Amino acid sequence: MQRRKFITTTLATTAALSMSGCRIEKQEDTQNTNAPFRGKKTKLKLATSWPAQFPIMGTGVEAFAKRCYELSGGSLEIEVYSKDTLVPALQVFDAASAGQIDAFHSGVYYWKGKDSAFSIFGGVPFGLTSEEMITWLKFGGGYELWRELYGKFNLYPIIGGTTGPQMGGWFKKEINTLDDLKGLKMRMPGLAGEVMQLLGVTPVLLPAAEIYTALERGVIDASEWVGPYLDEMMGFSKIAPYYYTGWHEPGSILEITFNLDSWNKLTPQHQAIITTASEELTATMLQEFRYKNAKAFQTLQKEVHIRLFSQEIMQAAKEALGIVLAEEEKKSANFAKVLKSHNDFMELNRDWDTISTKHFLSIRD
Amino acid sequence: MQRRKFITTTLATTAALSMSGCRIEKQEDTQNTNAPFRGKKTKLKLATSWPAQFPIMGTGVEAFAKRCYELSGGSLEIEVYSKDTLVPALQVFDAASAGQIDAFHSGVYYWKGKDSAFSIFGGVPFGLTSEEMITWLKFGGGYELWRELYGKFNLYPIIGGTTGPQMGGWFKKEINTLDDLKGLKMRMPGLAGEVMQLLGVTPVLLPAAEIYTALERGVIDASEWVGPYLDEMMGFSKIAPYYYTGWHEPGSILEITFNLDSWNKLTPQHQAIITTASEELTATMLQEFRYKNAKAFQTLQKEVHIRLFSQEIMQAAKEALGIVLAEEEKKSANFAKVLKSHNDFMELNRDWDTISTKHFLSIRD
Repeated sequence: MQRRKFITTTLATTAALSMSGCRIEKQEDTQNTNAPFRGKKTKLKLATSWPAQFPIMGTGVEAFAKRCYELSGGSLEIEVYSKDTLVPALQVFDAASAGQIDAFHSGVYYWKGKDSAFSIFGGVPFGLTSEEMITWLKFGGGYELWRELYGKFNLYPIIGGTTGPQMGGWFKKEINTLDDLKGLKMRMPGLAGEVMQLLGVTPVLLPAAEIYTALERGVIDASEWVGPYLDEMMGFSKIAPYYYTGWHEPGSILEITFNLDSWNKLTPQHQAIITTASEELTATMLQEFRYKNAKAFQTLQKEVHIRLFSQEIMQAAKEALGIVLAEEEKKSANFAKVLKSHNDFMELNRDWDTISTKHFLSIRD
Repeated sequence: MQRRKFITTTLATTAALSMSGCRIEKQEDTQNTNAPFRGKKTKLKLATSWPAQFPIMGTGVEAFAKRCYELSGGSLEIEVYSKDTLVPALQVFDAASAGQIDAFHSGVYYWKGKDSAFSIFGGVPFGLTSEEMITWLKFGGGYELWRELYGKFNLYPIIGGTTGPQMGGWFKKEINTLDDLKGLKMRMPGLAGEVMQLLGVTPVLLPAAEIYTALERGVIDASEWVGPYLDEMMGFSKIAPYYYTGWHEPGSILEITFNLDSWNKLTPQHQAIITTASEELTATMLQEFRYKNAKAFQTLQKEVHIRLFSQEIMQAAKEALGIVLAEEEKKSANFAKVLKSHNDFMELNRDWDTISTKHFLSIRD
């Protein structure tokens, strides 16, 4: 996809994008289902923080809604509203909390202003990978904490995908030492933005559609985005030739979060359908990112310079992260509790992961 | 769980294990489902190659059947038959092929006698990890090949879980050089068994329930099994103090395979339910293995010597694998075709995986 076309069709918010393609798919489903449902339908309104056609994330939640319809024989209809069509992208949390919508698909990192502990569910620099994060949620106590904290906002969260490991960002100049970082302006959100700030970088928040132009014109010197597949579509390789490997978002997870009353009103069958379909969405999204990132990375390797951050920079980033996390722990008991659970799981998992994954990859490749 | 108790209750085949606990669960479901299904039910008979209570694998397929019942509002009932109760453990493939049962839950590696290409779907030494294997199936063409080859047996395969990375096995003596391997008798199945044979080891096939005694009495000198969690239950740590890391089964996958006519007779809704529930089963099994392996590994580290095979041995094993694979490729066009697809995906994925996973783990830990 061409960069400009990608930006105009998927990143910009236009009236043409207002409703997702979901209804057309549903008509097809009804024809495919041997016993179309004729009783009373349950309809839910789900708003997203991204455009309906946004690759993998937007298309993923569409596929999820379609799957719920199929699994229920047509008795559960989730209407997916593209960002800003029913609720502004970053107001979906409040809207679901207040019961204006039944559910939303978004990223947990957006809500750290509500409770700083939420940033941990969105992924910790040098922290759990996507696979580990999901295991922590389901087996290591993560879900209990997440649901307890979201419960205070009358919300019930379910994992709604994950991007897999992200890249460290695009830089216009090569970065070898800590001195090279000082004074740079970089789009870098969340905990990692605070880390970069301690290293002398000025973190800048920019809407997706403005990043390219800001980077092209030198308003910013560097930007992280997601990974090879989505980054390639943004065209960054044309204007920032140094592409650094990731450390800051190893396991960023997305959410399908329900208004708690909407959730409790669902039948156990519909709750099971949503839970199981979200498992499929999550697994498939991770696999799709892996496949498409691998392909895009092959292309990008030929076009730009792939760089690892120096040990000096990574060591300093780890130390800065320690400071950032310690400050947050002091400020918030919730943050401290969730971080401890996250870190306990990382500690439990470390030796086995070293032997089973890291060592295996080192002898295989 | 005590070793003896584990072996008598889960590994041995007894009449007491004959039917799974599935029916009792189903009664509970009906009470939990707001609208219990009153129409014509679809009932399917599914036989497994393991006992119903076998941890993670047996309990996983039970949970899958329960989920299908929940998702369908009670209209899809999959009766799970523990190994040897309806069909002998290793005859489930033939029984489903002939239409005597509707489906089975087993491991693809068991059927390499039917077509040597099936061994690749069961996992290749130094090959794809579980996560990569599933991505290959869904995005890299693996499923198309698998279904084409199983189609000749009137079967329709769906992934039904994965064990994650396996350990390299238990040895009574430390293995430092190739000479230390020569003359050993070891339980080691599949392609890896052939590799070990080229290194001077005599591979021995033994039913699960006989391995411990054979190892204890010196009938064999070493044995692989699965990973820390299941191996710990077998009690190997008491009789073989050297536990070597894995290279031979990095991505062994399990299957829920249907008789093709039984599959085609299902409504699109029931097909979707089975597909989505199998995605949940697969993701959850991998996560459960990760969590329980991590815990068991912590214990085992204190009890036995964890060892990495020397570079000399791993290099020789890779070379031997090259010989084994080249021979199989010459013998079977199917094997050659599936191996090429597996290797193409591994090649596509390698650089991205190195940067995103291997490098990240090296800076994190």
